[in-house]
Amino acid sequence: MNARGGTIFRQLFDRSCCCFTYLIGDKYQKTALLIDPVLEQVDRDLKLVKELGLETKSKNFRKELACGIQQRFHNLTILRTNYLEYASAAFMCWIHEQALLAKHCSLKYVLNTHVHADHITGSGLIKDRLNTNGKLQVLSIVSESSGAEADICVDDGEVIDCGLVKLNVTYTPGHTNGCMSLIDHYNKRVFTGDALFIRGCGRTDFQEGSPSKLYDSVHSRLFTLPDDYSVYPAHDYNGHTMSTIGEEKKFNPRMVTSKEEFIEIMENLNLDYPKMLGELVD
Amino acid sequence: MNARGGTIFRQLFDRSCCCFTYLIGDKYQKTALLIDPVLEQVDRDLKLVKELGLETKSKNFRKELACGIQQRFHNLTILRTNYLEYASAAFMCWIHEQALLAKHCSLKYVLNTHVHADHITGSGLIKDRLNTNGKLQVLSIVSESSGAEADICVDDGEVIDCGLVKLNVTYTPGHTNGCMSLIDHYNKRVFTGDALFIRGCGRTDFQEGSPSKLYDSVHSRLFTLPDDYSVYPAHDYNGHTMSTIGEEKKFNPRMVTSKEEFIEIMENLNLDYPKMLGELVD
Repeated sequence: MNARGGTIFRQLFDRSCCCFTYLIGDKYQKTALLIDPVLEQVDRDLKLVKELGLETKSKNFRKELACGIQQRFHNLTILRTNYLEYASAAFMCWIHEQALLAKHCSLKYVLNTHVHADHITGSGLIKDRLNTNGKLQVLSIVSESSGAEADICVDDGEVIDCGLVKLNVTYTPGHTNGCMSLIDHYNKRVFTGDALFIRGCGRTDFQEGSPSKLYDSVHSRLFTLPDDYSVYPAHDYNGHTMSTIGEEKKFNPRMVTSKEEFIEIMENLNLDYPKMLGELVD
Repeated sequence: MNARGGTIFRQLFDRSCCCFTYLIGDKYQKTALLIDPVLEQVDRDLKLVKELGLETKSKNFRKELACGIQQRFHNLTILRTNYLEYASAAFMCWIHEQALLAKHCSLKYVLNTHVHADHITGSGLIKDRLNTNGKLQVLSIVSESSGAEADICVDDGEVIDCGLVKLNVTYTPGHTNGCMSLIDHYNKRVFTGDALFIRGCGRTDFQEGSPSKLYDSVHSRLFTLPDDYSVYPAHDYNGHTMSTIGEEKKFNPRMVTSKEEFIEIMENLNLDYPKMLGELVD
């Protein structure tokens, strides 16, 4: 679970829906994002964000900052007589503001790799909790192609910038039309959402699912990454926590087949519908 | 989940008992060990060991190797006339044997940080599966102080040697008398068993449990490690997968207290007895 350089990386798990949430942060610039937060785990996730020094700015942070700066400027200018001295006082205030900003860190984004049919995202609740007083400190992100509502809709090829961490958006439709994977080249890993699982893949029998599209997505967008890139999926049902592109190319039973065989497998899985599907797509 | 240099590292999870199993391997010397394997997950774990090229030598490996070497020596010596040429043929056979050995990798140890009361270890079954024909290719390890039976009983301060990976045995009694933690200084991480959990610790109300001993173990043996060492416990019930020594020192609610408070907390937890306790300690 180590991460290179100044990046923080945590994998979190929800046992009831077998969902993974990922917390990624920049230790120095104090920015962070959460991938696929689960509604029931918002308290756990925000607690960790806070403990790791990546919490959002406090409710009164802007007010406190403004008061502090005003007071400081007043103290600094009380004996000044000319513009140069006023300018120098203003500069000192700017330094003070930067120091305060650095102390108060920020969760910047909550990101969903797709609209889930088997659990409800925690994005909304996290925003409600942290975006107080109408300030948009935490922004939600989904793919443009998902058709879902969010503060930012990203397109294939775009880069999500979160300090040292840059996530390359790669569309990987098939489970849903709006599925995206996120590639972190710096740390050599990819968050595959419900496109690619460890020795498996997302189902394709509802929500615009298409086995043909999914096969192409995995083979042309994910299996073209270097073999040593780590694979971090949105779910796992067998107790695995990560894999690599090289392993999945060799051992993923659904992906070592031909496209025709894959389509046949996926069309004959006969799975139950996810419990929460009605709730989510109605 | 990255590991430095040529070491392989995987964290595996069992949802029903919330147990973590760790697979650690040396990519080059092709040796590996499993920490705290769970009985019900033996198939999963051995499959992964095999896929990662760390499986034990095949049943007939020694026989195949001997036949191959014999044949090769015969071919090489058929036209030789003096001892120097025989010696050179023998050297070529040695090279051949080493190449074969490198191709056939080996799971070397199955290790238990303690005797678990809440699940049955997979060590025995793994040995049964892999130690065919009376060959001890996989050896089980427990601490000397556990009083349990194993092929190797290690003492405080000993080093378990598995290729590039060296695990320093550190006794951390308290949950049971025989609990040990394993420190991997090379990769800056510690496997804490049931001594230290993420924001928690093992219970102390059965199997020779002692809150006083546990508090001392954590504070004197684990919290004296550098803050940036990763913490990998034997269990987690809240979906966390790892932590650091620095974090636990700051945020572990049971460990930020005084020893007296800790003892009071631990003596008043009023937990149910583990379901499998009778089965395991009778």
